[in-house]
Amino acid sequence: NIRNLAMEKVAATVMFPCKYASNGCNTTHLHTDKLDHEETCEFRPYCCPCPGASCKWQGSLEQVMPHLMSTHKSITTLQGEDIVFLATDINLPGAVDWVMMQSCFGHNFMLVLEKQEKMEGQQMFYAIVQLIGTRKQAENFAYRLELNGHRRRLTWEATPRSIHDGVQSAIMASDCLVFDTNIAQLFADHGNLGINVTISTC
Amino acid sequence: NIRNLAMEKVAATVMFPCKYASNGCNTTHLHTDKLDHEETCEFRPYCCPCPGASCKWQGSLEQVMPHLMSTHKSITTLQGEDIVFLATDINLPGAVDWVMMQSCFGHNFMLVLEKQEKMEGQQMFYAIVQLIGTRKQAENFAYRLELNGHRRRLTWEATPRSIHDGVQSAIMASDCLVFDTNIAQLFADHGNLGINVTISTC
Ligand SMILES: [Zn+2]
Ligand SMILES: [Zn+2]
Ligand SMILES: [Zn+2]
Ligand SMILES: [Zn+2]
Repeated sequence: NIRNLAMEKVAATVMFPCKYASNGCNTTHLHTDKLDHEETCEFRPYCCPCPGASCKWQGSLEQVMPHLMSTHKSITTLQGEDIVFLATDINLPGAVDWVMMQSCFGHNFMLVLEKQEKMEGQQMFYAIVQLIGTRKQAENFAYRLELNGHRRRLTWEATPRSIHDGVQSAIMASDCLVFDTNIAQLFADHGNLGINVTISTC
Repeated sequence: NIRNLAMEKVAATVMFPCKYASNGCNTTHLHTDKLDHEETCEFRPYCCPCPGASCKWQGSLEQVMPHLMSTHKSITTLQGEDIVFLATDINLPGAVDWVMMQSCFGHNFMLVLEKQEKMEGQQMFYAIVQLIGTRKQAENFAYRLELNGHRRRLTWEATPRSIHDGVQSAIMASDCLVFDTNIAQLFADHGNLGINVTISTC
């Protein structure tokens, strides 16, 4: 293998425009930094925030809510900063996602509860909140998820994800409310699990 | 197999004294109920509350603290209802237990953080509080365990276990603060994890 050192040196100093230049991004980058930038570029199209990746829709931030309302009509929306996200039939076998919308402070938040099957029949639950908005907007909020049971309470507080980042990487990193089947049973009532969700500004 | 129905009928109506009668228990039980009672009998000897089951000591409740102070001298005690339980080197390989004592409201509580190795190199952490006292005394308290990180907080609130029950069955049932290696990393600082512990009366 003879490496073309001359060409490598050129590539290292030439600046390339962002892939989303036609969407309005006018930054340029070293070859080595271009992919990193594009991953977080604010002009990158938004994907459909519904978990499960079955919907391949992409568009601008402004088009996300119209897309949800036209294509994902079955998602319930509750108004207010303090609501209960009721996940029914949590004992259903297999991987399952529960989704609902919460509307407060003039913004829309998507609540996601995801059940994954692990080794040996063990199941793990992941609950998280994402803002239909930019990363910068998300930084202005905090959310709290609370499971309440008989003399027991489990609480997770964090900054909502932006749908630009999505929830999958946070779920992979356990950067959300994580609990196993035993805990789900401790807090569930007849197979239904109520999660108290509170959004606040900060 | 010819079952001795006459004898079974006798056994089903004869009352047997509790195994701990010589310790002061004067209850009697149907053969079928005797084991259940003895499991929770308040006159059953107390085992050493240190996790790991390496110490085989048993004795009365009054003897537990003297046993800990003479045999488990290395356990730190902090005074006050609101303390930080600092677990150092949480990345140590293998199953590890961290233990400390908290003294408040005229009682002694043992804080336990247990790391277990699961399949595929995954590690799970279990944190729990037990009272050096009876089940009835434990009912008068609540504890809160809190992990605090950058714009993140994980909280578990529950009734302390009595050392008469021990912590192992609660850990097996995930009836405690449960978190995985990812979450431990989110909240740890240079491999040390601080858990805020607050005891309150109720
Ligand atoms: Zn860009
Ligand atoms: Zn969609
Ligand atoms: Zn007894
Ligand atoms: Zn001992």
